[in-house]
Amino acid sequence: MDLAVIREIEQLKYRYLRSLDLKLWDDFAQTLTEDVDATYGERLQFSGRDRVVGYMRESLPGSIITLHQCHHPEIAVDGDTATGTWYLEDKVLVTEHRLMLTGASFYTDDYRRGERGWQIAKTRYIRTFEAMESLPESWNLLASRWATTPAG
Amino acid sequence: MDLAVIREIEQLKYRYLRSLDLKLWDDFAQTLTEDVDATYGERLQFSGRDRVVGYMRESLPGSIITLHQCHHPEIAVDGDTATGTWYLEDKVLVTEHRLMLTGASFYTDDYRRGERGWQIAKTRYIRTFEAMESLPESWNLLASRWATTPAG
Amino acid sequence: MDLAVIREIEQLKYRYLRSLDLKLWDDFAQTLTEDVDATYGERLQFSGRDRVVGYMRESLPGSIITLHQCHHPEIAVDGDTATGTWYLEDKVLVTEHRLMLTGASFYTDDYRRGERGWQIAKTRYIRTFEAMESLPESWNLLASRWATTPAG
Repeated sequence: MDLAVIREIEQLKYRYLRSLDLKLWDDFAQTLTEDVDATYGERLQFSGRDRVVGYMRESLPGSIITLHQCHHPEIAVDGDTATGTWYLEDKVLVTEHRLMLTGASFYTDDYRRGERGWQIAKTRYIRTFEAMESLPESWNLLASRWATTPAG
Repeated sequence: MDLAVIREIEQLKYRYLRSLDLKLWDDFAQTLTEDVDATYGERLQFSGRDRVVGYMRESLPGSIITLHQCHHPEIAVDGDTATGTWYLEDKVLVTEHRLMLTGASFYTDDYRRGERGWQIAKTRYIRTFEAMESLPESWNLLASRWATTPAG
Repeated sequence: MDLAVIREIEQLKYRYLRSLDLKLWDDFAQTLTEDVDATYGERLQFSGRDRVVGYMRESLPGSIITLHQCHHPEIAVDGDTATGTWYLEDKVLVTEHRLMLTGASFYTDDYRRGERGWQIAKTRYIRTFEAMESLPESWNLLASRWATTPAG
């Protein structure tokens, strides 16, 4: 068990999730191989880094706040490739429509080590569940990193 | 601090939680010693692997979706035994009755290493809180791993 | 990458969060340097251990149940100092007023190693979001670690 390599791969996954939720699309792109194959649930499937990043950039403006937290890493390394299973909990707040998506999934990933270090070569998840609800009238957003001060 | 052993124990816990939430009861059974002592909150107490597994198998059909995620491992190893503290967040969706349980707990576990590797010998948790609520009318399950297509 | 030191720092953070949510204020105090600088979101800023601990002790009685779970540690060690980024999810239940706060934040911490081992020297977070809602009528607290049996 090469603990240092396993930790490098965990750090890669944390960078991927942090740059996703902070909408840092250039950093996000660097966590993926150019030929990455990404499948999120049953509806979203992408071939290639440009398509994944393009989709995220387009569909996640500041009015959509996301939370993607991955837990329980089970990682196996074999030379310059590795596989990993993670337990995702996610939440998406569509603030303009007062909708909230919540869900959980098991991710299975492939990782590859190249000139730019470890990157995600394949990522897919199967949901245990996904639900959508309207936020009740009493729900108030107190703070958002992407809030803009309305003009006076 | 034997980091490789600590990680082995973490992997055991992740297998336990993954097989629980995926309802893989044979895999779940293998994470427990035959004489395991399990106490979940104030209401559920079991002696022996067969009773724990039997209870879970009976009471968690596909219509009950569970999420058990454990965080913040604090693990101490002493030869072939070890102890661990974890911070659980859990959610139970009783889809047929549109009920949701949410809660958090601190787990304290004992682990034992034998012929089958590390297993959970004793597990118990004390809740910080547990709450139940009816899911509002606007809440819709979009996906469930255990959903069956209704006959046409 | 010194994995044993990184783990020590993680353990420190878990102790900090566990003693916070269990309201163990003396244990909580020991995770902080005497001159700690703590900034929680935009509203709360403290200089010095006594002020942080005093504020928490005052404002978090048993009727206020908190959950602070930190994920995705990205830690860099440099001798007797270290920095860390974490992804927090938190929930605060103000049971007497039936209010719930939920949110997520990225923490950036500084750690320092002294006579008492690693301690938190600086901690601050920026929220991705924070929301408040009234708990619906159907929401019932089934268990609380701090519940007192009402006199008969």
